[in-house]
Amino acid sequence: MTHNEKNSPVRVGIVGLGTVGQGFLRLLLTNQDLYRQRLGFPLQLGGVCERNHSILQSLALPSDCLVFSSWEDMVKDPRITLVVELIGGIEPARSLILAAMKSGKSVVTANKALLAQHGEEIFGAAASQGVDLGFEAAVGGGIPILRTLRESLAGDRILKLAGIINGTANYILTRMSREGLEFETVLAEAQRLGYAEADPTFDIDGVDSAHKVAILAMMAFGSPIRLEEIPVEGIRHIKPIDLEFGREFGYVLKLLGIAVDHGDSIDIRVHPSFLPENSLLAEVDGVFNAIELSGQFLGSLLLYGRGAGGDPTATAVMGDVMECARGIQHASRGQVPALGFHVADRVRKSLRPLSAIYSEYYLRFMAQDQPGTLSYLSGVLGERGISIESVIQKGRQSGGSVPVVVTTHRATESQIRNALSVIDASDHVTEKTVVIRIEDVSMEGPLS
Amino acid sequence: MTHNEKNSPVRVGIVGLGTVGQGFLRLLLTNQDLYRQRLGFPLQLGGVCERNHSILQSLALPSDCLVFSSWEDMVKDPRITLVVELIGGIEPARSLILAAMKSGKSVVTANKALLAQHGEEIFGAAASQGVDLGFEAAVGGGIPILRTLRESLAGDRILKLAGIINGTANYILTRMSREGLEFETVLAEAQRLGYAEADPTFDIDGVDSAHKVAILAMMAFGSPIRLEEIPVEGIRHIKPIDLEFGREFGYVLKLLGIAVDHGDSIDIRVHPSFLPENSLLAEVDGVFNAIELSGQFLGSLLLYGRGAGGDPTATAVMGDVMECARGIQHASRGQVPALGFHVADRVRKSLRPLSAIYSEYYLRFMAQDQPGTLSYLSGVLGERGISIESVIQKGRQSGGSVPVVVTTHRATESQIRNALSVIDASDHVTEKTVVIRIEDVSMEGPLS
Repeated sequence: MTHNEKNSPVRVGIVGLGTVGQGFLRLLLTNQDLYRQRLGFPLQLGGVCERNHSILQSLALPSDCLVFSSWEDMVKDPRITLVVELIGGIEPARSLILAAMKSGKSVVTANKALLAQHGEEIFGAAASQGVDLGFEAAVGGGIPILRTLRESLAGDRILKLAGIINGTANYILTRMSREGLEFETVLAEAQRLGYAEADPTFDIDGVDSAHKVAILAMMAFGSPIRLEEIPVEGIRHIKPIDLEFGREFGYVLKLLGIAVDHGDSIDIRVHPSFLPENSLLAEVDGVFNAIELSGQFLGSLLLYGRGAGGDPTATAVMGDVMECARGIQHASRGQVPALGFHVADRVRKSLRPLSAIYSEYYLRFMAQDQPGTLSYLSGVLGERGISIESVIQKGRQSGGSVPVVVTTHRATESQIRNALSVIDASDHVTEKTVVIRIEDVSMEGPLS
Repeated sequence: MTHNEKNSPVRVGIVGLGTVGQGFLRLLLTNQDLYRQRLGFPLQLGGVCERNHSILQSLALPSDCLVFSSWEDMVKDPRITLVVELIGGIEPARSLILAAMKSGKSVVTANKALLAQHGEEIFGAAASQGVDLGFEAAVGGGIPILRTLRESLAGDRILKLAGIINGTANYILTRMSREGLEFETVLAEAQRLGYAEADPTFDIDGVDSAHKVAILAMMAFGSPIRLEEIPVEGIRHIKPIDLEFGREFGYVLKLLGIAVDHGDSIDIRVHPSFLPENSLLAEVDGVFNAIELSGQFLGSLLLYGRGAGGDPTATAVMGDVMECARGIQHASRGQVPALGFHVADRVRKSLRPLSAIYSEYYLRFMAQDQPGTLSYLSGVLGERGISIESVIQKGRQSGGSVPVVVTTHRATESQIRNALSVIDASDHVTEKTVVIRIEDVSMEGPLS
C-alpha cells in the first residue's frame, strides 16, 4: 500500500474528463485553500487520463499535472495516490478500478451501472485490498444519500426508501403533466435542451433508476442485491390522459425507485407511481431528485437536491476524495467498509417477486360504451377480492369506447394481473387496461 | 489515550437518561447484531450515570452495565472507552466533557447550548487531546445535517443556509396559521400536548434556533461565531392578523435561522420570515425541521425530517458513537476535525450587523382612518429609497384605525428602521408598526 509522509500532498489522478470530470477538476483547482483548512495537508491534482485530445487541449492544466495516455500507466504510477474513475460504463472502468485497488490505491467513482452489476466483485476487492472506495456520486448527484445511509443512519434499521432518482424521467413527467403533452413530444424537446441523452433508453425505461435503487438497497439493508431480479417499468407508455385522471383523484405521477425491508425478504422495484399531490415527493419537479426514507427509530427523512449535472456531482466526488485522502494520510484505509457493512458479515435476503407485492392501483379500462360494462368490471375485480376505492367514468369518445377509471384498495399484484387477464380477454374492453400503482409515501407526524 | 485490543468491544458510558438518553439506550440494546455487522467489533453498554433513581429503577439494564453515582467516576473509569453526554445545559456538562477528553476519551453530545456558547473551548480541547467529538444530535434531531456539512459537502463552499430548526416554534406557527388562533392559546395547548416545555422561552424567543444556527454556521463557513452577536427575534409578538395578510400576499410565516457567507463577512440571524407559499421550506409543518443550503458548485440541497424526539435524536447520537468507536478501535482518533476545519486553520469572519442586511419587508401600519394616510406612508418610505411592491388596505376597524399592509422591494434594515422611526412617531398611526422580513429561499432550477 502507498503510504504518505505526514503533510505531504495526496495526489489525485482523474480518468475521464467529461462533464463530471471537468467539474471535479475545476472544483479541485478552485478550492485549494479550503482543502488545506479542512484536511491539514494539500490535495493535489496528480494527473489526468482522457482519450479525447480536444478536451485535453481545451483545459488549462497546471504544469505539474501528469498527462497519461493510458489508464494502465496511471493506476500503476506511484506518483498518483488516489484514482478517480469518471469514464462510466462497464469496461474498461471495471478493470481500471480493480487494477488501481490491486496497486493499493483507494478509488472514487460515480459509476452506478458498474456497481449495480459488478458490485460484489468491486466491494470484495476493496475489502481484501484494504483500500477505500467512494461512490457517493453514483446516486442522486449532489445529494449526500449514500454517506447518510452508511454513517449518519448506521445505528438504525432502515425500513423503506423511495426516491425520484432519475432527473430525465422526472423532467419529462413534469412537463407532460403540466402541459398535457405526449411523451414523444417532451422527450424530443428534452433531448434538444440537453436534459435527455441522444439514446435515452436507460433513463426512460427505468434502467438507470434500477441501478441506483440497487445501490441504495445494498447500503440500507446490508444485503447483496441481484440487479436482474428487480422488476423495472419505465415511462414510455405513459399517456397524458392518465396524468389527467390521476390529477382528478389527487395524484401526481413520478418514476420511483422503491425498496422495502420486510425482515426476511426485500421488495425492490422501479415503476411509475401515483403519489398523493400533497406529499413531498410529489412536489419534486423537473431535473431535481429526492429520496425519502423511513427508519425504525428515525421516522421519516427526506433529502432533496440536484440529482445530476457536472458541478453538483463533482461535489459528491470531492467529498469522497477528501475522505479517501484522509485515509491515505492517516494510514487508516479500510476503516469504514464501502457499503457500511462488512462484506462477509452481510446476510443475503431474497427479493420478493412483483406478484407478491401489495399496492393500491389505478386502472384505466377502455370500455365498450354499452350497458353493464361497469357492473362486469366491478364483478371481475370483486370476485378476486379487489375492492374499489373510487370510479370515474366520462362521456363517450370518438370510436365507441369510453375510459372507465378505477382506483382500488390494497391488493396484491397477482390479484390484479389475474383480474386483468380475464377482463382484457373479454369484449367488454377495446384495449389493454392501463395499470399504475399508487404509492403511499407521505411523511408521518403531527400536522404534517 | 485508551487503545482497544483488536475486536475487543468499545464500551459506551451514558451520562443522562432523559428522553434522548433512554432512546439511545434502547437503540444500543436493540441493534447489537447490526452494529457488529457494520463495525466488525461489538459496541457495548459500559455504564450509565443518572441522578434520578426512579428513572434508573425503571430501566432493565444488563447485568454487566456499570452504574456510576457520579460522572467524575465514569469519565475516569478505564472500563468506559467512550462517553455520551446527554444531560444538557452548561454545567456540569462542560466540565464533564472536558474531563472525559482529558482522560483521552472521545465524546458524543447533543448539547447545542454548550457548543454554541463554549464551542471554542470544547473544540480546542478535542483537537489538543486528539480525541473525537460528535454532536450531530445538537442540530435537527435525526436530520444528518452536520455530517453532511463536515464531510459530504466538504469540497464545496457553502454560500447560504436557512432552516426551520425549532419544532416547538414551528408547531405553534403552523397551528396559528391554520386555525387563526392567538399565540398564547396555541402555546398553552402545545404545552399540554408535550410539544412545548413548561418554560418555553428558549424555543419561542429564538434562543434555541440561535444556538443551532451558530453551530451550522461554524461548520458551514469555518469561522468561529460569537453567539451574542447574532440578532435574534422570536415569535411571541406574532398575531393571527399578520399570518392572514401574509397569506393574501402568498406567504407563509416560519421562524428561520439564516446564515449567509459574504466572503469577507457573515450574516447570521434568527427571526420570523415570510416565505413564498410554494417554497419547500414553507411546506414544513408541525414539529418537523428542515434545512436548505446552497453551495457554489452544489446548488441547492434540502434535508427534511424529525427535528426532535428521543428516538430520532438517538439515531443521530448513535451515528456519532459508531464513528467514534471506529476511531478508538482503529487508533485513528482526531482524523476528522470536529468542525470539519482544523481549529487553528480557521479564519474569523466578522458578523454583519442587522442594520446592514438587505431584505424585502412586510410592514403592517395601524393607520388613522383619514384621507392622505397612504400618501404619507408611501412618501416617507419613498424618501428613504424604499420601493413598495404591493399594498392591501382593508375597511374600517372598531377603534378608528385600519391596517395598511405594505410589502417592499429589497431595502436595508437601516432604511426601514429609519422610515419607521419617523412614521411611528407621527399621528398618522395608532400603534407601533409590525415588521416582518420576507425571505427568498426557493430552490432554483428548471421546472422547480
